[in-house]
Amino acid sequence: MEKRELIYEGKGKKMYATDDANLLIAEFKDDLTAFNAQKRGKEDGKGALNNKISTQLFKILKEKGIATHLVETLSDTEQLVKKCEIVPIEVVVRNIATGSLSKRLGLKEGMVLPFTLVEFYYKNDELNDPIVTDEHCLVMGLVKSEKDLETLRHIAREINSILFKFFEAKGLKLVDFKVEFGIDKDGNILLADEISPDSCRFWDAQTNEKLDKDRFRQGIGEVKVAYEEVLRRILS
Amino acid sequence: MEKRELIYEGKGKKMYATDDANLLIAEFKDDLTAFNAQKRGKEDGKGALNNKISTQLFKILKEKGIATHLVETLSDTEQLVKKCEIVPIEVVVRNIATGSLSKRLGLKEGMVLPFTLVEFYYKNDELNDPIVTDEHCLVMGLVKSEKDLETLRHIAREINSILFKFFEAKGLKLVDFKVEFGIDKDGNILLADEISPDSCRFWDAQTNEKLDKDRFRQGIGEVKVAYEEVLRRILS
Ligand SMILES: Nc1ncnc2c1ncn2[C@@H]1O[C@H](COP(=O)(O)OP(=O)(O)OP(=O)(O)O)[C@@H](O)[C@H]1O
Ligand SMILES: Nc1ncnc2c1ncn2[C@@H]1O[C@H](COP(=O)(O)OP(=O)(O)OP(=O)(O)O)[C@@H](O)[C@H]1O
Ligand SMILES: [Mg+2]
Ligand SMILES: [Mg+2]
Repeated sequence: MEKRELIYEGKGKKMYATDDANLLIAEFKDDLTAFNAQKRGKEDGKGALNNKISTQLFKILKEKGIATHLVETLSDTEQLVKKCEIVPIEVVVRNIATGSLSKRLGLKEGMVLPFTLVEFYYKNDELNDPIVTDEHCLVMGLVKSEKDLETLRHIAREINSILFKFFEAKGLKLVDFKVEFGIDKDGNILLADEISPDSCRFWDAQTNEKLDKDRFRQGIGEVKVAYEEVLRRILS
Repeated sequence: MEKRELIYEGKGKKMYATDDANLLIAEFKDDLTAFNAQKRGKEDGKGALNNKISTQLFKILKEKGIATHLVETLSDTEQLVKKCEIVPIEVVVRNIATGSLSKRLGLKEGMVLPFTLVEFYYKNDELNDPIVTDEHCLVMGLVKSEKDLETLRHIAREINSILFKFFEAKGLKLVDFKVEFGIDKDGNILLADEISPDSCRFWDAQTNEKLDKDRFRQGIGEVKVAYEEVLRRILS
């Protein structure tokens, strides 16, 4: 598959056109950003790690019946994906309270939530990805109908059920994660973008050590070592 | 009814106990605050105006079948109300985009919303009354069940239908408003607190002139004149 023009360069990936109008190449970058890109950094090899981790998780999800955009891995840092119209909603799933949830609502850091929370954020960097309710999504026309929101919520919960159990068996707590969905040319809702330590929180089940982008956000260090450990556990 | 000890002094009202354990006296203050009390002011007579306006609106709502905490007016600034357990959710109803909605989501100021929005905010000054979804309300135990949230939403929409039409006939646009609900000793959900220019936005239907607390928030001035105009229209 030929790599054509750069369509979009984001904070974590570059998206390239291909010979096929329905396919894109996603190239994972080594850049790290946090707090809406106010904090910036770089870790050599991070892109390759995220590419491997995300590919592996998407494969597991596919086996369990989740439709995803992933077609195939092309190289250490590149994957071929189905081109989608991205739904401008970041879907966040939370099993344990931390981060912005704890700060905003005063929920104790590390508290196991009585049930898994699904939150929607309007994907808009200028507005700093504000949290939205179903009614906001409908007023802004982010989806066609309430049914689409129910579908997003349902798939997000399924992904959580699958991955939570998977990581539990690997000695990792899946604290929370963000996913994006897209609509492909046939109107199917696909899991798109990535699932990686950039977009998830993983805590070691024994020690609660953070093995995700919070190491970068909070300046804990050893970011790449942590991402390598997540990959090692996934493949173990 | 004897006025007993001060139970709570808020930004806009003092709440007093009475001889009857199920009744409180609400005394409306002349103080004005905005931006979670970062901006403070005072307008002589504002308390009396809000007492009259809120009493009148609660009476109209009662006639249309909305259960409220209002028992009777006691004086210019005082009313007798049924004591409630306040549900710690500020229910905001919006017909037109403005204020925090416009700022947060980038919706054009003054845009007529395609449908009336109902939002919930967690009533917590320390956290700056953060916006919450149904799932947040349930996780935090702010209500017993999803059904209670549906009830709050339903009553809030009914209040809006009644008051929107009422104000339309008086040449005022009901832009948005905040209401609070309480549970009385028998477990009934009552409309509590107040509905006044402190908690609503009113725009003149012809000129779009603001006739509410935004005059104070934005330093437009003539706050009391505006509140007097709202009362005049209500009684007209
Ligand atoms: N299958 C797909 N088809 C089209 N676009 C996709 C697909 N998968 C992911 N994307 C989009 O490609 C971009 C990937 O870049 P990256 O993740 O670096 O963006 P970002 O910096 O997170 O910014 P943002 O997500 O806000 O655009 C994202 O905008 C993502 O929504
Ligand atoms: N019927 C009622 N029974 C018990 N409490 C009530 C009733 N109606 C209103 N209240 C409460 O009494 C207080 C009135 O004071 P005020 O409106 O000045 O408070 P505030 O400064 O807005 O602060 P806050 O509403 O955050 O407590 C509010 O806390 C309100 O929720
Ligand atoms: Mg991204
Ligand atoms: Mg109040």
